[in-house]
Amino acid sequence: MAEVPPPAADLGLLSPSWAGSAVADRTGDAAYLRAMLDAEAALTRAQAALGLAPESAAAAVTAAAHTLRCHDLALRARAAGNPVVPLVADLTAAVADRDPDAAPAVHRGATSQDILDTATMLVSARALDAVRADLGRTADALRRTAAEHRDTPMAGRTLTQHAVPTTFGLKAAGWRSLVLDADDRLAAVRASLPAQLGGAAGTLAAFHAYAEAGAGPGEAAGPGPGVRLLAGYAAETGLAEPALPWHTLRTPIADLAGALAFTAGALGKMAADVLTLCRTEIGELAEGGAGGGSSAMPHKANPVRATLIAAAARQVPAQAAVLYGSLTAEDERPPGAWHAEWQPLREALRLVGGAARDAAELTAGLEVRPDRMRRNLDATRGLVVTERLAAALTPVLGRAEARRTLDEAARRAAAEGLDLRDALAPGTLPDDRLRPLLDPTTYLGSAGPLVDRALARPAHHPQEPTP
Amino acid sequence: MAEVPPPAADLGLLSPSWAGSAVADRTGDAAYLRAMLDAEAALTRAQAALGLAPESAAAAVTAAAHTLRCHDLALRARAAGNPVVPLVADLTAAVADRDPDAAPAVHRGATSQDILDTATMLVSARALDAVRADLGRTADALRRTAAEHRDTPMAGRTLTQHAVPTTFGLKAAGWRSLVLDADDRLAAVRASLPAQLGGAAGTLAAFHAYAEAGAGPGEAAGPGPGVRLLAGYAAETGLAEPALPWHTLRTPIADLAGALAFTAGALGKMAADVLTLCRTEIGELAEGGAGGGSSAMPHKANPVRATLIAAAARQVPAQAAVLYGSLTAEDERPPGAWHAEWQPLREALRLVGGAARDAAELTAGLEVRPDRMRRNLDATRGLVVTERLAAALTPVLGRAEARRTLDEAARRAAAEGLDLRDALAPGTLPDDRLRPLLDPTTYLGSAGPLVDRALARPAHHPQEPTP
Amino acid sequence: MAEVPPPAADLGLLSPSWAGSAVADRTGDAAYLRAMLDAEAALTRAQAALGLAPESAAAAVTAAAHTLRCHDLALRARAAGNPVVPLVADLTAAVADRDPDAAPAVHRGATSQDILDTATMLVSARALDAVRADLGRTADALRRTAAEHRDTPMAGRTLTQHAVPTTFGLKAAGWRSLVLDADDRLAAVRASLPAQLGGAAGTLAAFHAYAEAGAGPGEAAGPGPGVRLLAGYAAETGLAEPALPWHTLRTPIADLAGALAFTAGALGKMAADVLTLCRTEIGELAEGGAGGGSSAMPHKANPVRATLIAAAARQVPAQAAVLYGSLTAEDERPPGAWHAEWQPLREALRLVGGAARDAAELTAGLEVRPDRMRRNLDATRGLVVTERLAAALTPVLGRAEARRTLDEAARRAAAEGLDLRDALAPGTLPDDRLRPLLDPTTYLGSAGPLVDRALARPAHHPQEPTP
Amino acid sequence: MAEVPPPAADLGLLSPSWAGSAVADRTGDAAYLRAMLDAEAALTRAQAALGLAPESAAAAVTAAAHTLRCHDLALRARAAGNPVVPLVADLTAAVADRDPDAAPAVHRGATSQDILDTATMLVSARALDAVRADLGRTADALRRTAAEHRDTPMAGRTLTQHAVPTTFGLKAAGWRSLVLDADDRLAAVRASLPAQLGGAAGTLAAFHAYAEAGAGPGEAAGPGPGVRLLAGYAAETGLAEPALPWHTLRTPIADLAGALAFTAGALGKMAADVLTLCRTEIGELAEGGAGGGSSAMPHKANPVRATLIAAAARQVPAQAAVLYGSLTAEDERPPGAWHAEWQPLREALRLVGGAARDAAELTAGLEVRPDRMRRNLDATRGLVVTERLAAALTPVLGRAEARRTLDEAARRAAAEGLDLRDALAPGTLPDDRLRPLLDPTTYLGSAGPLVDRALARPAHHPQEPTP
Repeated sequence: MAEVPPPAADLGLLSPSWAGSAVADRTGDAAYLRAMLDAEAALTRAQAALGLAPESAAAAVTAAAHTLRCHDLALRARAAGNPVVPLVADLTAAVADRDPDAAPAVHRGATSQDILDTATMLVSARALDAVRADLGRTADALRRTAAEHRDTPMAGRTLTQHAVPTTFGLKAAGWRSLVLDADDRLAAVRASLPAQLGGAAGTLAAFHAYAEAGAGPGEAAGPGPGVRLLAGYAAETGLAEPALPWHTLRTPIADLAGALAFTAGALGKMAADVLTLCRTEIGELAEGGAGGGSSAMPHKANPVRATLIAAAARQVPAQAAVLYGSLTAEDERPPGAWHAEWQPLREALRLVGGAARDAAELTAGLEVRPDRMRRNLDATRGLVVTERLAAALTPVLGRAEARRTLDEAARRAAAEGLDLRDALAPGTLPDDRLRPLLDPTTYLGSAGPLVDRALARPAHHPQEPTP
Repeated sequence: MAEVPPPAADLGLLSPSWAGSAVADRTGDAAYLRAMLDAEAALTRAQAALGLAPESAAAAVTAAAHTLRCHDLALRARAAGNPVVPLVADLTAAVADRDPDAAPAVHRGATSQDILDTATMLVSARALDAVRADLGRTADALRRTAAEHRDTPMAGRTLTQHAVPTTFGLKAAGWRSLVLDADDRLAAVRASLPAQLGGAAGTLAAFHAYAEAGAGPGEAAGPGPGVRLLAGYAAETGLAEPALPWHTLRTPIADLAGALAFTAGALGKMAADVLTLCRTEIGELAEGGAGGGSSAMPHKANPVRATLIAAAARQVPAQAAVLYGSLTAEDERPPGAWHAEWQPLREALRLVGGAARDAAELTAGLEVRPDRMRRNLDATRGLVVTERLAAALTPVLGRAEARRTLDEAARRAAAEGLDLRDALAPGTLPDDRLRPLLDPTTYLGSAGPLVDRALARPAHHPQEPTP
Repeated sequence: MAEVPPPAADLGLLSPSWAGSAVADRTGDAAYLRAMLDAEAALTRAQAALGLAPESAAAAVTAAAHTLRCHDLALRARAAGNPVVPLVADLTAAVADRDPDAAPAVHRGATSQDILDTATMLVSARALDAVRADLGRTADALRRTAAEHRDTPMAGRTLTQHAVPTTFGLKAAGWRSLVLDADDRLAAVRASLPAQLGGAAGTLAAFHAYAEAGAGPGEAAGPGPGVRLLAGYAAETGLAEPALPWHTLRTPIADLAGALAFTAGALGKMAADVLTLCRTEIGELAEGGAGGGSSAMPHKANPVRATLIAAAARQVPAQAAVLYGSLTAEDERPPGAWHAEWQPLREALRLVGGAARDAAELTAGLEVRPDRMRRNLDATRGLVVTERLAAALTPVLGRAEARRTLDEAARRAAAEGLDLRDALAPGTLPDDRLRPLLDPTTYLGSAGPLVDRALARPAHHPQEPTP
Repeated sequence: MAEVPPPAADLGLLSPSWAGSAVADRTGDAAYLRAMLDAEAALTRAQAALGLAPESAAAAVTAAAHTLRCHDLALRARAAGNPVVPLVADLTAAVADRDPDAAPAVHRGATSQDILDTATMLVSARALDAVRADLGRTADALRRTAAEHRDTPMAGRTLTQHAVPTTFGLKAAGWRSLVLDADDRLAAVRASLPAQLGGAAGTLAAFHAYAEAGAGPGEAAGPGPGVRLLAGYAAETGLAEPALPWHTLRTPIADLAGALAFTAGALGKMAADVLTLCRTEIGELAEGGAGGGSSAMPHKANPVRATLIAAAARQVPAQAAVLYGSLTAEDERPPGAWHAEWQPLREALRLVGGAARDAAELTAGLEVRPDRMRRNLDATRGLVVTERLAAALTPVLGRAEARRTLDEAARRAAAEGLDLRDALAPGTLPDDRLRPLLDPTTYLGSAGPLVDRALARPAHHPQEPTP
């Protein structure tokens, strides 16, 4: 935190989840400002390429955009309700300083939403690249963990109770499959993020007007300067070309919402499991490294990474609901639905970015304790394999009688504190038949083959580009 | 409504949106019950095909499942917290009546969640087919409307104010593109809906146990009976084969959530526009047909279809948030997160199904009033083309002076009730230059080519299968 | 479930939480229908009392309303978008059968929203009475539990780890205080639920028109028939008189939303604790009674009541968000915001009603296991009192050195599997000083007095009225 | 914005709603930091007052807290997952610099949550004071508007269509009643915001331990030092004394959530109406002052204040849903539910603070145009009074025939473009009877008396305290 931050500044004090992360830097006000200036410069360059603006203007705007320092944009955004209006004023002045003839080309033909939406896509692209890099690290760590513990038995738990055995490998492979599902969804969204350009009401009409007014070639051939500009502008930004201006066709925002909520939940599942398995009484996992200490209690080692992921997973679905709600954007620009997207989308990117970083750290350092898993598996003294005994007894006793026998044995075991073996009526099964059936470590079904199958799924390894 | 419905019954009284729709029937308690029985029958057949159950059991269970009438399942579900437990009891009794030897094969090796999740996927598949059929009708109607009104000018509105002209064709083409986006997302989800099978804790262990206990062949070769059963069971249900049991890897539910929230919002955008354009003072659109009458006011013709779509669009994002939240499903079966999915998913399916039906009806009967569009376009007496004048004046006066001139003219026009033309300082532009610039119907930019481009996108036409 | 339910019927199959509950019956379609008819009858009686309708009409409408059977209202509601329009048709016909002169008095001057909103308040009132009765039972049971276990020590857990000791009495007293907080909020809302009456656009004008047209006395004196009718109608319904018609001033709905979300969360806290403390490895609590069985595993006794409460707590906040969102109700009746309230409010009432019933059952039968609490308290071998040792050592060693000593001891205890006592450097404290400090059952701070203080807060005991 | 802000900083660029507002300053990281330090100082003073800490420590901690500059707290919060841990380190060092003997008294006996929760309550209190001041200004402006326009007729609109006349006074009085409802709810929450103090697990045990260890008097009499400290600490903070530590009894947070969601929605209703009535075709209202300009279109005057309020109203219910969800806080401190409260609550405070500021500005400058209201009232050429004609015709023709007559006239009027008067069959009513019935300005029912009644409700006028 700066020595004397502006009083209203949010620097992450309440967000240990994302404070200091790559995504936080890529989604701060400075990053949005940078992206808006990138969009303005791309627009002028694209117009110049079509002869709709002088080449010198493209150079002047690009140069000015790279060095501009804006002051008080947030406050000045209040009058018109968005930050592009004061930004254009500043950019125009800066360009005029360099090249007065270039100034009229700034933002020409565009509407504020063209710039802010394009900037939002650029910011999202840069943020998703960082998220995906951390998901890649997480998936790699989980692959190693799942392979290492392919056959490590542990209690399977349903509705909080031991059910039948499973393996830690199967659990870790499941976590990985969710991480890959999340990455698939983010990758699909990332690849389709479109530039935005429509002009005042989505018809691109001003570009025609300026072309007609002498700034460039007219509409003689083809679809006219508007549609041609769409392609050029998209290429300049590095984003996809939209089929239509999407001022009120908010597919890209909704797709981001869904992919981010998915990712938060996918990581949240892992965090929920880690939190359970770290419980003092269970102790099968621990967050490695320093762990989270306590100001008051010297002995505490809290699962802080999992806690922060869980906190993120509680918030992102609500942000996504707001964003899905903004699909109902009336007219050619809605009074409210658009404005309600900005902060929830940023916060969702940040929370997911923070959660992905925490997931990468968590899985890199996770301590697995097979001995505790083994010990806990015996906590019910054999009850964890009653299902298997039922299968074995059914051919002997019939289904109903087998069930009655086991219900009674389970009741006795619980009431008298016995092992299931001792609670069974003597002679229910020959001892050499019974003994191996009571071994939970051999009642793992298809767990191993399922792990193999899950790990055969490849992970993408996106290159993390220089921001 | 039945003469004396059970007091707690919900038959749609509060849901005119979905009452009487195909989706409502496909998602009622009876449809879920049917789907659970379908799942049970598929499971026994799949086991029989692998030699894990007698062929006669497959026949008996299938026959019993098709005729079973269950009583009071909802109340009896309370004890165990899910409806499968009493369903299995009833089905077992019904099978025993037909073939006592087949009874032990009922539900063998499965857990309640295997059946209820599979049933949920079957219900979702059947519901999505109906939704998609209505989206197809909607897209077709919108294609016709957009083509017919490709060049019908109307006011483009931003932040509630006339901005520049657009066309109704472009608006309708935009609605269609959202409908196609929604259908793409639903189609992708529909194709991937998986069967569920994992047994008590997702290891498929009981299938191994029963195989070992003599009910079928052992594990000698390959991945064992569990994994092989997964493929056979999926094939029997007609659903996709999952890579892993997904008791707590809730990708399919989350994907449904996203696609449904998207669809509700996509239709909600159209409804929001229709509601605005139907306003008494605007009157550019009307819901055709009878329209919605009023009990008190003879003259009212309310946009009821759009109202009900709008109501659905307000609700589904919240249901989706709950479903995304359920991704954080701890252990091998979570105490709450799973149970919290059931009703929100059904309600989301119903709301989207109702909205799709309303959209199909709305677009089939929509009355478009080009005359009112034309008249409204003149409501600002020329201000709707100030952007174009700015473009024309800039080369003449310079950008800043052009803006000043127009600001002053706009101020005078508003203050003195003048046409923009008369409010402009005389001689600002030669009259023969000015006149065509003031015609809003020729300031449409790329609207036409954008419509062409949007309509070139093909719609899928899924066959609506017999349920 | 009825033998052949209408295919779309929801009878609770997916809602074991509320199936069969008092609230379910009070919120079914039949209950809403009954409440709408109650509202219609109250309106005619109130008009008759002011001379705006004949006394005979009041009698005829009341009688017809009590016996009316409506058919297919849900389907017929579709045309106008609400169920009141077809209801009025049926009621008018039924009244005409009894007394043709009375028929014109049916629904006279009212709008559909007057009837449906009033019915919603009546349904809510009846549902809240049932909820509060179950909260009263829950609070009573918790008072007994907290008093009994005022001094039962158990581990206090923070971020999943044992922190310092607490008592089960303090935990139960906390649960009770949340239940009382919830009941306070529900009671405040219950007492203020208003009748709705405004006529077509909230001016009550039609009542003036009918009065002027000869149906009753004119406006000579006072505020006119509209405002006077407001009071009389409210009195007839048993609801509060609103200061203004609230067609688009949705305070009552928003207040219900908040109180219901609060109640779900308050019970959800208890459920979350119960689920944790029931875990196989923790075992400090169990749901008494039969517990929830498993179809596959004879030994399972699942915490089903807590599971269903937890599921409800995950859903109601989302319903509340929709309802809060409906405060933004434009005009004199909004196209969508109103309609989006109906089902979410009903579902919230049902989920809370089901959760309250489950809470009453859960707390009535809860098994508390002080021995397991005691044993778990020793699970960290003394680390649970490091905070106390830090306090004791600080005057001796200084704060920093005391902390260092304990950090080292905690590290050794964990690494070497020692008791904290043995891990402390010998002589750190004299043994007779150390021994009592290591007893966790005497490190309970103000737990006892806090329980006393919490239990001194009285619970309301609302009389459950005959429905 | 600072010249070179830290890249991750959020200074309001995406939040024109709250940028620069009093609430923004009161909820920034600096304000939270200040409040945490206030809490620490209050704790030491309260302990000193009970003899649990030296008076000199109280002075030293208070002095250090007032001048402390913290660095990088957000980053350093990551290890333990909350900002209090590094804050305590910094504060302890600063106190040690002043008075080494005082250092051990810093934070003694407390847990991080005691400090952060107390700080959150302090921040909330300060923010709510600013919100309420703006609501007071809004209510005052609306009182004046409603009184001035008590009898200004305008069209009442339902489901987007003209229904019957109403008055702008009644609409404004309704807005005011919602503002007062919101203020009542905020005032109630404000008065009850409690301090937080519980120590590690809510038993206040460490205060006993330090007392016993010689830092102060023992537990000889009364409830012991813990409970007594609770009262003293609350008094020092200026917050209410809680009955119990509320680490996991989150009533205060849930109550804030509800009151904030209510307020956002209450203001959102007004904004929705303003946005509708500002539409170009309706034009009955305009935001006064400069209005929101456009970068491209000289003539635009956008309703920016209403737009930003509408945007806030779309977001706060989702934040509230997250906060209600955090009621399910397991154990004595939950891993995630607590952390998930911090940012949503801050954002909700900010959005509501911004919306209240915008509402105060909006209502202070609102332009009302009775002439447009009057003209629009005639837009349906008399159809807006069909309800009144129905009342007048019913005694003459009977109810059914009256309705038939009017349906036919309404149909003819629409089809042939006639006034209702001319569309009625001649002689339906004598002309001197008909003429006054057709005047919409005399069909206002109880609108006037309802305004009087609503304005009789007093507004609170909280003194805005010096921050």
